[in-house]
Amino acid sequence: MKQSRALRRDAGAILKAALRAADPTKAVEAALLGRRDLDGYEHIFVVGAGKATGTMARAAERILGKRIAAGSINVKDGDMAKLRRIELHPSSHPVPDERGVAGAKRMAEICAGAGGRDLVICLLSGGASALAPFPAAPVTLAEKQETTRQLLHCGANIHEMNAVRKHLSAIKGGRLAKLAAPARVLSLILSDVVGDNLDVIGSGPTAPDSSTYETAMAVLDKYGLRQKVPAAVRRALEAAEDETPKPGDPVFDRVENVIIGSNQNSLEAAAREAKARGYRTLILSSTIEGETRDIARMHAAIARQIRKHSEPVRSPACVISGGETTVTIGGNGKGGRNQEFALAAAIDIAGLEDVMILSAGTDGSDGPTDAAGAIADGATVSRSCRDPAGALRNNDAYPFFEELKDLLITGPTGTNVMDVHLILVA
Amino acid sequence: MKQSRALRRDAGAILKAALRAADPTKAVEAALLGRRDLDGYEHIFVVGAGKATGTMARAAERILGKRIAAGSINVKDGDMAKLRRIELHPSSHPVPDERGVAGAKRMAEICAGAGGRDLVICLLSGGASALAPFPAAPVTLAEKQETTRQLLHCGANIHEMNAVRKHLSAIKGGRLAKLAAPARVLSLILSDVVGDNLDVIGSGPTAPDSSTYETAMAVLDKYGLRQKVPAAVRRALEAAEDETPKPGDPVFDRVENVIIGSNQNSLEAAAREAKARGYRTLILSSTIEGETRDIARMHAAIARQIRKHSEPVRSPACVISGGETTVTIGGNGKGGRNQEFALAAAIDIAGLEDVMILSAGTDGSDGPTDAAGAIADGATVSRSCRDPAGALRNNDAYPFFEELKDLLITGPTGTNVMDVHLILVA
Repeated sequence: MKQSRALRRDAGAILKAALRAADPTKAVEAALLGRRDLDGYEHIFVVGAGKATGTMARAAERILGKRIAAGSINVKDGDMAKLRRIELHPSSHPVPDERGVAGAKRMAEICAGAGGRDLVICLLSGGASALAPFPAAPVTLAEKQETTRQLLHCGANIHEMNAVRKHLSAIKGGRLAKLAAPARVLSLILSDVVGDNLDVIGSGPTAPDSSTYETAMAVLDKYGLRQKVPAAVRRALEAAEDETPKPGDPVFDRVENVIIGSNQNSLEAAAREAKARGYRTLILSSTIEGETRDIARMHAAIARQIRKHSEPVRSPACVISGGETTVTIGGNGKGGRNQEFALAAAIDIAGLEDVMILSAGTDGSDGPTDAAGAIADGATVSRSCRDPAGALRNNDAYPFFEELKDLLITGPTGTNVMDVHLILVA
Repeated sequence: MKQSRALRRDAGAILKAALRAADPTKAVEAALLGRRDLDGYEHIFVVGAGKATGTMARAAERILGKRIAAGSINVKDGDMAKLRRIELHPSSHPVPDERGVAGAKRMAEICAGAGGRDLVICLLSGGASALAPFPAAPVTLAEKQETTRQLLHCGANIHEMNAVRKHLSAIKGGRLAKLAAPARVLSLILSDVVGDNLDVIGSGPTAPDSSTYETAMAVLDKYGLRQKVPAAVRRALEAAEDETPKPGDPVFDRVENVIIGSNQNSLEAAAREAKARGYRTLILSSTIEGETRDIARMHAAIARQIRKHSEPVRSPACVISGGETTVTIGGNGKGGRNQEFALAAAIDIAGLEDVMILSAGTDGSDGPTDAAGAIADGATVSRSCRDPAGALRNNDAYPFFEELKDLLITGPTGTNVMDVHLILVA
């Protein structure tokens, strides 16, 4: 394991590059500093919602200063971003509350007041949907939540949920962009969803919606919910007034949606750093989902292949992937999906020399723990006095890696572009 | 989907190349025809066991003819290989029986009779371990089986099982090679195990064994079985007489183990065919294990990445992998792991153009069906009138693909080097 220390140092630097690419401050700076059009507007307004939006708003204030005429953002409870011109509305996450509604109304008001020579900058990041609820009257927040609960209970998928929710919202499904017209809209988006679909992130307040009232009703009927949802919800969907703006709607001629941070961006930054450090790099995918331990095993199988057959890439190799896997909980241990990933990988690469697998959540907090993830190599299993298979069965990766000092501790990063997985072979 | 037909034609040809590389007749021919030493022996003996060994033995007879002095192989019940010089012992699989013992004894006898100027050719393929049981006296077949059953029941892993079984066998763990000394031994091996470890395939009759009697006892103690296994088994392991030959033992100076067919070989053949057809190819791994649907989803994520980001390889792309995944049965439908792989992938690539994913078992028989696997593309889900998620939940991939005429039907191939997965992006 002579290369172990070098591999760890490189892995740390590569992960750091991935996190830097998702840094909300740097991402907003990069998006705004290069733009020539910002001086041409009569007023600039800033709205937005999401867990990273406080930081994003600060960066916007630093760059735009007094050019910001007004603004309002919804952030998660406890976010104390010091803002001078943009109002801060802390609200509840993941279960929305009336404070969120109040903030969302203020946003809508600002957008509605913007004119043809104005710019509305919309800041979006993970959590936006829950942090900025705005049920379209007369539906109440409680009624909208009850509908969501029923859909979840029936096993509706995310597309079905969104078709219904967008048609019950005053700002989602492109309606915020419609409110802002005729102003220009620039959305700066930190994506925390697999595939970076604009109409999914924060339920797409400034993105075209391809679902219709008909789609929403079909979803209710599919699950036999038409008579079960609150009456106000049923009536609103049946009335089908004021359809959400569709792809091709002229509203979007003046809207620019820019993804300023995403898993893909971070993987590309990781690849650049790995290349600079002399690795042959390969990005497998930024949309990986599935049961954590099985996805980890496939990563281990690729590591073995590199070691034994110099495929899919010759060493020194760095194979990079990302997305968001899922742990089916079977035990009562302490851990998170990234630590579980590293543990499952450790078992399958046990004994291999100069091979390392790392998994980390870009938000710095993996499951209910203070670690972002963990590092595994060919000596992980032999260095531990614990039973790795037992720890995996019990979803108990945290103490396993804590003892080996192989937890990755970054602290909260203030961003979230899902998870990053690295395979390094020296 | 303009390229769909071309993709299917190419996928079929690439799969065919993979199967051809694992063809027992061709593999034995390739291994024997090039050898110059075969005329130099006084006698050539042929022994062996496994499901493909009948075909392998026929190929050996065709090449060596009268140079074969004697031989005996154990094959699966129903194998009617017409042999002239080599005895055929049909026996039971997967549960061994006394006919298997009789055949194994005959093999041992032939090996023991070989002299210093003789060659013993040992043919091994999938199923060899169960087809050629030979408990070391005084342990009986029933006692050995009871021990195996107890170990399985306690959750012992394959390495632990093998450490015990090899020390209860008269021919496994390198003991057949020891019996054959001072003759030369040439083992021709079709590998059906992940990683192609010589000491695992057929429990390694001609390969060094790194486990010891002590290892075997430690396994029994780990699971509290020392007092529970049959008394003859305990006594045999405690007596620790006649240790299996270890790596470095001079016995192996005269032994050559050659893997003539394996998943890796087949993936390489597939890659050559894909390259010849103009695809940029990438072999991910030949040792993929894990829950089928999750591994399939990761393949779909890679397909999406190729389509959207030209990574990990630019189109026209052919990404190849292999191994043996596992289906955790939750429903009561009809299918096999390769059909389930294709179904899970179909859901995740729905709507993508010019993307195809194929999964096939190289033995031609996937689960309890007459199909080898299935093909999925971006139109699979929309072409079906069934609910793909429901079919997946019910492990019911066969009727799903049967209706679409997307089952792969090869018929029994007479070989087995596990499964092949292909991602094609035009």
